[in-house]
Amino acid sequence: MNRFEEMLDNVRASQPLVHCITNYVTVNDCANILLACGASPIMADDEAEVEDIISICSALDINIGTLNGRTVSSMLKAGAKARSLDRPVILDPVGAGASQLRTSTAIRLVSEIAPDVIRGNISEIKTLADGCGNTNGVDADIRDSISEENLAESVDFMKSLSGKLNAVIAVTGAIDIVADNEKAYVIRNGHQMLSRITGSGCMLSALTTAFCAANPASLAEASAAAVAMMGLCGELAHEKTLECGGGTGSFRAYLIDEASLMDGSKLEGGMKIEIR
Amino acid sequence: MNRFEEMLDNVRASQPLVHCITNYVTVNDCANILLACGASPIMADDEAEVEDIISICSALDINIGTLNGRTVSSMLKAGAKARSLDRPVILDPVGAGASQLRTSTAIRLVSEIAPDVIRGNISEIKTLADGCGNTNGVDADIRDSISEENLAESVDFMKSLSGKLNAVIAVTGAIDIVADNEKAYVIRNGHQMLSRITGSGCMLSALTTAFCAANPASLAEASAAAVAMMGLCGELAHEKTLECGGGTGSFRAYLIDEASLMDGSKLEGGMKIEIR
Amino acid sequence: MNRFEEMLDNVRASQPLVHCITNYVTVNDCANILLACGASPIMADDEAEVEDIISICSALDINIGTLNGRTVSSMLKAGAKARSLDRPVILDPVGAGASQLRTSTAIRLVSEIAPDVIRGNISEIKTLADGCGNTNGVDADIRDSISEENLAESVDFMKSLSGKLNAVIAVTGAIDIVADNEKAYVIRNGHQMLSRITGSGCMLSALTTAFCAANPASLAEASAAAVAMMGLCGELAHEKTLECGGGTGSFRAYLIDEASLMDGSKLEGGMKIEIR
Repeated sequence: MNRFEEMLDNVRASQPLVHCITNYVTVNDCANILLACGASPIMADDEAEVEDIISICSALDINIGTLNGRTVSSMLKAGAKARSLDRPVILDPVGAGASQLRTSTAIRLVSEIAPDVIRGNISEIKTLADGCGNTNGVDADIRDSISEENLAESVDFMKSLSGKLNAVIAVTGAIDIVADNEKAYVIRNGHQMLSRITGSGCMLSALTTAFCAANPASLAEASAAAVAMMGLCGELAHEKTLECGGGTGSFRAYLIDEASLMDGSKLEGGMKIEIR
Repeated sequence: MNRFEEMLDNVRASQPLVHCITNYVTVNDCANILLACGASPIMADDEAEVEDIISICSALDINIGTLNGRTVSSMLKAGAKARSLDRPVILDPVGAGASQLRTSTAIRLVSEIAPDVIRGNISEIKTLADGCGNTNGVDADIRDSISEENLAESVDFMKSLSGKLNAVIAVTGAIDIVADNEKAYVIRNGHQMLSRITGSGCMLSALTTAFCAANPASLAEASAAAVAMMGLCGELAHEKTLECGGGTGSFRAYLIDEASLMDGSKLEGGMKIEIR
Repeated sequence: MNRFEEMLDNVRASQPLVHCITNYVTVNDCANILLACGASPIMADDEAEVEDIISICSALDINIGTLNGRTVSSMLKAGAKARSLDRPVILDPVGAGASQLRTSTAIRLVSEIAPDVIRGNISEIKTLADGCGNTNGVDADIRDSISEENLAESVDFMKSLSGKLNAVIAVTGAIDIVADNEKAYVIRNGHQMLSRITGSGCMLSALTTAFCAANPASLAEASAAAVAMMGLCGELAHEKTLECGGGTGSFRAYLIDEASLMDGSKLEGGMKIEIR
């Protein structure tokens, strides 16, 4: 399993510039998690500059939280340029299913940009699969959640969806699955406190983008390593929060702490990845 | 006084989805305080999706900090839809009085949407009352502040304003008042350190929205409970900041900690609410 | 060297209102550092209100991170009004050199507004000097960095650029230089951990604006004091981070802590300013 831990080392060694077009709610957290893992963020969403910016960056993170007409055009333009330059594109379809705008934009981005990786919760991913879905705001609908009971079925679904969309699918929740059309990584890291702060998902998508930027030949493995790292950071941050008698505000700071303090061997020791 | 503490329990039990159209300065804090109290935030400000979003949410928080032409239209549209669906609407008129745009937008929102609760500092509230006011930027003008000396007069003013605007008025400062046209809750929780971080007021408005979402039949009491909870969290966060030798950066994290660790009995034990 | 430490006291005594037109990535950090140093922030970027807002403020901070067509117009309008009212204007040309939009906007702002202080990293400052440059995203290009070896040459360059642009130049990195056309302050405070969080530069520009607002007759000295204070806060925050076994998330909170706990004598004792 050496390859997973090396992927973080590759991020720290190459310090990739990551172009983010993301929402204004969690953008600061995304920038800080990118810096914590060794990458360098640049946030730019104006149509007049996104082509210049992606041209100097190694990968593109598109996140549709708080999207608007202006930024949708920028996402499409940046995505097309990234494709032409062969840069990995990661899509986070935040809230797909919660509004017609989000659903149609997510579907359009998948269709026009063909992202390399799609990272979302199960409701968002099912919305993309179905063209419609049961999304409870920006959180996953509980009826959709992946459990040990439906895991085999969920793994098959994600592999099949990966083949259909020609993208690595990373779906996160109590159990995480990262799948391409041939194999799936089932990841059991994480802590439920991650769902009690905003930005866990957005930060993971940013982290995944950094891992893909530094490991462009192994996008599924890079995505799985990012998912395991985020989960492990959540576990460690939760332990520290308990020790200090803290709550979700401290947890948020500790989460970024753990990302900045993570290294390959700690990651290897803590990650719980099963291949199916 | 059982009803106040039950209001937090109701938030935790019902986990209401709260739609926020808010400023980009403190939006992350608003999302985190909503999660900390047990609610679920969704930030969405594009005119094309606000009607969809409020339709799946239990209440609407409109905050005019960093407003612009695009978001004002969205606020009006979301507000109208919320009204038609009978969802509580909370208005935070940030900086009303500081610019013609903010003053006229705040007045227009009050007139066209008829929010259920208006939460601001005394300068902002007086601006709404007068159609003009003495606002010192986004902070309250010191000449306006509520003190023990002018408390009776201030309580009468707020009750009367509540009747005039047909809204619960929540005015916060050294002493807080939450009034409808018949009664007022005078709340003496809080700590001045709350004024040394950005977002205390915005977070309180978001928290108030969550409390109103979960307690729609008792908006004045729900608002008073939210105000007391925020003040109490400020007191506890200040104590922890002192213990740790921290400053305002730590205080900010501890404030959200305390909100996430709060429960009904702690709230009941710590709140200082007087009915007038 | 008394004058430097008095400058912080002047901020705390006068509590200047500072108008920021800044990016949505680090805007919360900018607001919190302004409050921590004793100033009062107001973020406002709509063309319809920027003239009103700067009229009630003591200084203007223009930061071009995440600029877009709408905000560029607001920057020009606010800048012109600030000039007519004789308010200090500070420009942070974030990412100048990284895209044509940022480069041309930065050059246009310098030419049309004639800011009093320009605060950036060496790549951004050289971009302004050259009309083109080697910028590595929003971080400085390592080939450009100021070292003890090229310090004399760098000091001369900054003095000359200051004369050419008629602005105080504050360039920050491993060694910081604040120069007008006659003298330069070489500042050796700081810690490399400042470059591992987002917002260090933006926060420094905001802090510089507060110092200029409170010390309008001594803009170069005010800027140097702000640069030294930010560096010293970084040193102290790093020490605390080490003590607590924290990472970059804790460092970020401690940095704002230290700004809120700083006073004139602590600043005088810790700052490392050399005049050349």
